[in-house]
Amino acid sequence: MWKRLIRFEAAEDGAVHIGQPVDAQLDVGLAFSKNETIKAHEISGSALDPGAQVTDKVLTVKKLLAPLSREQVGLVRCLGLNYKDHAAEAKMQAPANPVLFYKPVQALIGPCDDITIPKALQPVDFHLPDFEAELTIVIGKPCKNVSEADALDYVLGYTLANDMSFRHHQMAVSQWSFSKGFDDASPWGPCIVSAREIPDPQTLYVKTDVNGKSMQDGNTSDQIFTVRTTIAFLSQGTTLPPGSIIMTGTPKGVGFVRQPAVFLKDGDVVHQSMGGGIGSIVNKIVEEK
Amino acid sequence: MWKRLIRFEAAEDGAVHIGQPVDAQLDVGLAFSKNETIKAHEISGSALDPGAQVTDKVLTVKKLLAPLSREQVGLVRCLGLNYKDHAAEAKMQAPANPVLFYKPVQALIGPCDDITIPKALQPVDFHLPDFEAELTIVIGKPCKNVSEADALDYVLGYTLANDMSFRHHQMAVSQWSFSKGFDDASPWGPCIVSAREIPDPQTLYVKTDVNGKSMQDGNTSDQIFTVRTTIAFLSQGTTLPPGSIIMTGTPKGVGFVRQPAVFLKDGDVVHQSMGGGIGSIVNKIVEEK
Repeated sequence: MWKRLIRFEAAEDGAVHIGQPVDAQLDVGLAFSKNETIKAHEISGSALDPGAQVTDKVLTVKKLLAPLSREQVGLVRCLGLNYKDHAAEAKMQAPANPVLFYKPVQALIGPCDDITIPKALQPVDFHLPDFEAELTIVIGKPCKNVSEADALDYVLGYTLANDMSFRHHQMAVSQWSFSKGFDDASPWGPCIVSAREIPDPQTLYVKTDVNGKSMQDGNTSDQIFTVRTTIAFLSQGTTLPPGSIIMTGTPKGVGFVRQPAVFLKDGDVVHQSMGGGIGSIVNKIVEEK
Repeated sequence: MWKRLIRFEAAEDGAVHIGQPVDAQLDVGLAFSKNETIKAHEISGSALDPGAQVTDKVLTVKKLLAPLSREQVGLVRCLGLNYKDHAAEAKMQAPANPVLFYKPVQALIGPCDDITIPKALQPVDFHLPDFEAELTIVIGKPCKNVSEADALDYVLGYTLANDMSFRHHQMAVSQWSFSKGFDDASPWGPCIVSAREIPDPQTLYVKTDVNGKSMQDGNTSDQIFTVRTTIAFLSQGTTLPPGSIIMTGTPKGVGFVRQPAVFLKDGDVVHQSMGGGIGSIVNKIVEEK
């Protein structure tokens, strides 16, 4: 079984493969963003296949892709207000139950792809595009009505995502779906770290820097609803299919509650990172012309 | 080109087909719920294929299915608070912009299937399962950044859905996704009426009866955001893929704001119907044992 899984176009044949980085310590997202060479052992089969094996074949990463295709993900679940410090900065009450919303897979992009600010969401100082670094759960097998005790058995692994949010639309109506669902705006990756490598997901740092300046520096130990609780709650009467992902909320430090407010604009570089061997996603902001 | 499209298992071969009812006036949902024989001309190709043609071959409906498979739909968009009279009864302000949320396709069931109340959502007098009859748009071609003037060109057709809602969870947190996304609870159909047959979708009655008693008796003319406005708004920076559906909100009369509150329980029969040749969906409530 693999420990860290990446998906990529290989320099050798131009085709899409999955693999495990040869260097077990390498932050593949950071390395790819610096044009460093990344080598990976090909993994046979599919990321969602429990029998997938790391092979001896070594390939070179030409382009780093999201760890699963949009078709494999199917649907993105997201939690809001899941860190005590973020609920406090947003002047919102800590919720009694996990606050769920969905994001369409058309929003998802690779770990080092540009984040598109659509023309319809400009000017940015009105629409307030904003970053949210989030521990992201990848479900590994069909999950419905599971207990907290069993919940982690359904996790394939963990990764990182930016739940990109456009604050004008988020504040304009009660439901957050529209403001967080724009095409090609939500990067994730760079790899899936197997759940076996992270026995306790409530111990991971989660950070955002924008243009080299620290904005978020939190830890999943501050989550209101743990990974166990989240999966058990969301699976009530509801199937979480294999490949579906759950973004578990963001710690404090987001742009729109800062004084003065910080918003993302053309050319900004957002660097987010996470512990547990997950590493970095690095994304340039591009305002659609 | 077809005028009304149904999807069904045929008595002749047990396989899934699409077709057009032979009787142009027949309410296929009501007929199927009464075990009446329904004949349909087979349609060649896929429902999403603009070249699909009605053939001479006549088949008999053994089981009426949702008009598209879950895979074809991909994702369900829903509007909340989109009728003036419903916003008023819920004591909510009419929104300034369409209020979007999503529903996973695992929630969708056929037009005459039983509606499941999961064990986790019992007892019903606490969780308050409730009906919402809704005009439902079926998108026919990839739709992004379209104007109100062009919006209807992207509509394959119209149908009816029950945006089944569990009011306890809907009221417990700010986001409605969890309360409206349970497995096997949201019927839709019985057919797609081609957009060419309904040039003005703001003229259609929409009704709910529960156990023969009228609960909702509205008209899409009362919608706050028209079909045109909804599609143009939702397509901003966002791809609406072919096959995706948009449930456009419900008129007044839902159960939880009634005095006393009405909630659905084991054995209840919900009959919803719509004008424009769309017809009925008829569903028995079954509390999971």
